[in-house]
Amino acid sequence: MLKNVLNPKNCIDKKVFEKKIVSIQERLGAIQRALREAHIPVIIVMEGWDAAGITHSTKEVIESLDPRGFTLNTIMQPTDDERVRPFMWRFWIRTPPKGRIALFARSWYSRAISAEMQRTSWTKSLEGGIISINNFEQQLADDGTIIIKFFLHIDKVEQKHRFEEREKNPLSAWLVTPALWNLHNAYDLSFPVIDHFIEETNTAFAPWHVIDATDQNFAVLEIYATLIKTLEKTLNDRANGKTIRHNEPLLPKKHPLKRKTANRTQDISCVKKECIPIVDHLQEEMLRTQALLYKRKIPLIILYEGWDAAGKGGNITRISRHMNPRGYDVIPVIAPDATEQSHHYFWRFINYFPKAGHIAIFDRSWYGRVLVERVEGYCTECEWKRAYREINDMEADFIYSTGGGILKFWLEISKEEQLKRFNQRKSDPLKQHKITEDDWRNREKWDQYEVAIDEMLARTNTKIAPWTVIGSDDKWTARVKSIEAVTSYCKKLLE
Amino acid sequence: MLKNVLNPKNCIDKKVFEKKIVSIQERLGAIQRALREAHIPVIIVMEGWDAAGITHSTKEVIESLDPRGFTLNTIMQPTDDERVRPFMWRFWIRTPPKGRIALFARSWYSRAISAEMQRTSWTKSLEGGIISINNFEQQLADDGTIIIKFFLHIDKVEQKHRFEEREKNPLSAWLVTPALWNLHNAYDLSFPVIDHFIEETNTAFAPWHVIDATDQNFAVLEIYATLIKTLEKTLNDRANGKTIRHNEPLLPKKHPLKRKTANRTQDISCVKKECIPIVDHLQEEMLRTQALLYKRKIPLIILYEGWDAAGKGGNITRISRHMNPRGYDVIPVIAPDATEQSHHYFWRFINYFPKAGHIAIFDRSWYGRVLVERVEGYCTECEWKRAYREINDMEADFIYSTGGGILKFWLEISKEEQLKRFNQRKSDPLKQHKITEDDWRNREKWDQYEVAIDEMLARTNTKIAPWTVIGSDDKWTARVKSIEAVTSYCKKLLE
Repeated sequence: MLKNVLNPKNCIDKKVFEKKIVSIQERLGAIQRALREAHIPVIIVMEGWDAAGITHSTKEVIESLDPRGFTLNTIMQPTDDERVRPFMWRFWIRTPPKGRIALFARSWYSRAISAEMQRTSWTKSLEGGIISINNFEQQLADDGTIIIKFFLHIDKVEQKHRFEEREKNPLSAWLVTPALWNLHNAYDLSFPVIDHFIEETNTAFAPWHVIDATDQNFAVLEIYATLIKTLEKTLNDRANGKTIRHNEPLLPKKHPLKRKTANRTQDISCVKKECIPIVDHLQEEMLRTQALLYKRKIPLIILYEGWDAAGKGGNITRISRHMNPRGYDVIPVIAPDATEQSHHYFWRFINYFPKAGHIAIFDRSWYGRVLVERVEGYCTECEWKRAYREINDMEADFIYSTGGGILKFWLEISKEEQLKRFNQRKSDPLKQHKITEDDWRNREKWDQYEVAIDEMLARTNTKIAPWTVIGSDDKWTARVKSIEAVTSYCKKLLE
Repeated sequence: MLKNVLNPKNCIDKKVFEKKIVSIQERLGAIQRALREAHIPVIIVMEGWDAAGITHSTKEVIESLDPRGFTLNTIMQPTDDERVRPFMWRFWIRTPPKGRIALFARSWYSRAISAEMQRTSWTKSLEGGIISINNFEQQLADDGTIIIKFFLHIDKVEQKHRFEEREKNPLSAWLVTPALWNLHNAYDLSFPVIDHFIEETNTAFAPWHVIDATDQNFAVLEIYATLIKTLEKTLNDRANGKTIRHNEPLLPKKHPLKRKTANRTQDISCVKKECIPIVDHLQEEMLRTQALLYKRKIPLIILYEGWDAAGKGGNITRISRHMNPRGYDVIPVIAPDATEQSHHYFWRFINYFPKAGHIAIFDRSWYGRVLVERVEGYCTECEWKRAYREINDMEADFIYSTGGGILKFWLEISKEEQLKRFNQRKSDPLKQHKITEDDWRNREKWDQYEVAIDEMLARTNTKIAPWTVIGSDDKWTARVKSIEAVTSYCKKLLE
């Protein structure tokens, strides 16, 4: 896509530019207000060769925007904190809430291309990186985010000329480092890599606009024209009820899981007394396992889903009892707050994704999308149907990009056992706070939840991140199985 | 405070410990729920010698807590992001919201002592660091946070013994680094520094508890006993309406500022045409200034307060027009959301404090406490009266700990001019969104605001962070003065 873009005729006189720019900026300002009112999030990506004018163009664009409604993200070398997270983490947490514009002056593309050029790619291959980026953009686009990507193109001669100009200016001379000259020398080497990246990520939901940036005025007007055209069209489409694409075929069901019989097929029928020494032993093994994961910088996600009162809390306590508290976090998931609701539903979880060598234990998770949100109607049918694929993609991306693992537990109890536990909680003053009206209401929808649970288990039981169903009518048996599953999963991770 | 703490009798048998611990943990769990219901935030600091058992004690404490109600902050070496912010920034942003417990496994103390020992102190002196920490803790305590600080004490012989034990264990051997042995060798050198720090930060609002940690069981029970005693007492006191200390004498007024006559004493009575070239010239100077601040890593806060429609937005646009967008942020301050409201009122601002070499421009600021919050009764009289001292302390701390600057503008317009602008906004379709019902309501309280503004200017016009009052009835004059003030202030910063 980089070929045949540059043309000496792409040039605009300063006076013409200044005449045009004022009304254009006012128009974009008005569009921004309309986007805010329509609760549409927008991502604008500014990429390009060094010295192609990313800063200048960004400045022009933000000049027309109300600072209350946009965020500028400058993507530089990753920080310590970013280095130890999944590659896309730093971008996920910066995605805009509804009605807001997020500008990225350089983005995941620069980071990915730089990783590729330095052969420190975070995925096994260039193609892996492309899949990862396309997934990310599709997840956001499907959720309603408009993504507009610009690549500012200049040729090698022009780049050299600009570097030399900057070197002559004492204020910018120190910024033209030998490393930057190295990048210039590698221009021809980078060209096909960048071109390939752009080709392969030029999707319908997040198209590229390659801009001839040899003349800055021309480039800025092109950017403005593209922004105005795209945003006005989307505003119109949405006002007329048109959405990009939503209905997608449901994922096929994966390996079936025997949930309902989980409690009946217990192979260890043990009582508390027998279990306690086993749990003790496993906890010590868990501590050793954690130390190895930490040392080898392998991150692990453990997530618990299950019926109310199935014993998620008890399991988590038993797993973490001997673990070093500095190396793990328990993330109790409750209803999202207003800020969280205005983002993609992954956003609040990804924020808590573990650092290299750390363990994140989720007490409930993103599977809420296909459980409570589905049953209670908090999301549309299209949304929860799409979620199976989205979740599988997201989990695979975490595993591939970090070399870490995801362990998913479903805690199964019978309806009778739940009632027994609810009543116990009601009568025990130390446990009363654990039972609420919501729990009783959820119980009334037992059958609807069963349908949702079975579908979830069937469609998201992937090879790379399979579910473990644990029959939990017997609390202590469940705890033994749960820790056993964690230690044996980790053993495989460490192999 | 470290002397005479260690005693060989401080020892508890394992069986006795296990008998006691269960009921104690249940009690702390119940206290946690009571704290949540009473909306009381708690900070627990775990400090101590290396290998004194900070991790072990932390693990014991969190075992009794509901993970939904606490956060564990592990303070290690500062990250890149933390290194370029004010020293206390990383701790401020981790302070707990109302009803939540924040545990710090190591804290500002370890970082400050380490900085002191390595002679890379972030303040000019040890005493500066102590003042800074006491300010921080007092700000939080006055806001209702309970602060409980533990120092786990062991002697040099015991420390050596523990290091050696860890070296024998293959899982922990790699963690006993030469650097750690260096710290052990410096035990006697560190002792007086730590002792002095503890003495000087042992305040009524955030007292220290030095614990003999030679026997782990003893230490854990001591920690629990202290937590339970302190927290139960506070719960009782608060339930009975007792608060720690609130009424403090108002700060004396500083240098008086002529606000009302600002518009009458304009020394440049210029019109738009005359001003534009001056502004152009100053903007270029601003770009040069920004480049120098960036290169020399000096952070700058510019904040704008002023009557509605006084022209804050216009001023900010003119200042930043030529600036590099990667080096500054505009932070538009609106009403706090629920999360922000559950924190200390500084919290949401400190989050946006500039990195080294960066500029943060606040469109409204923490002065809302003594303006809108005072006038509208969103905070108590005690709170806004205390705020003058709190704000002066906080600003001084930013300047001393970063070597940066704070520039505060008050934009003054006459009541007539405001009415004119309100009406203009109402009738201009491009500006209609800028005027709301709130603006008209605020205008009705003009006189009350005048009292609050004058008191704010009088009490927070410190030498280190003085106010600049700008007569803004003439927009362009105001813009010239505002940029002039910024560039000349920066020149002084760069001297």
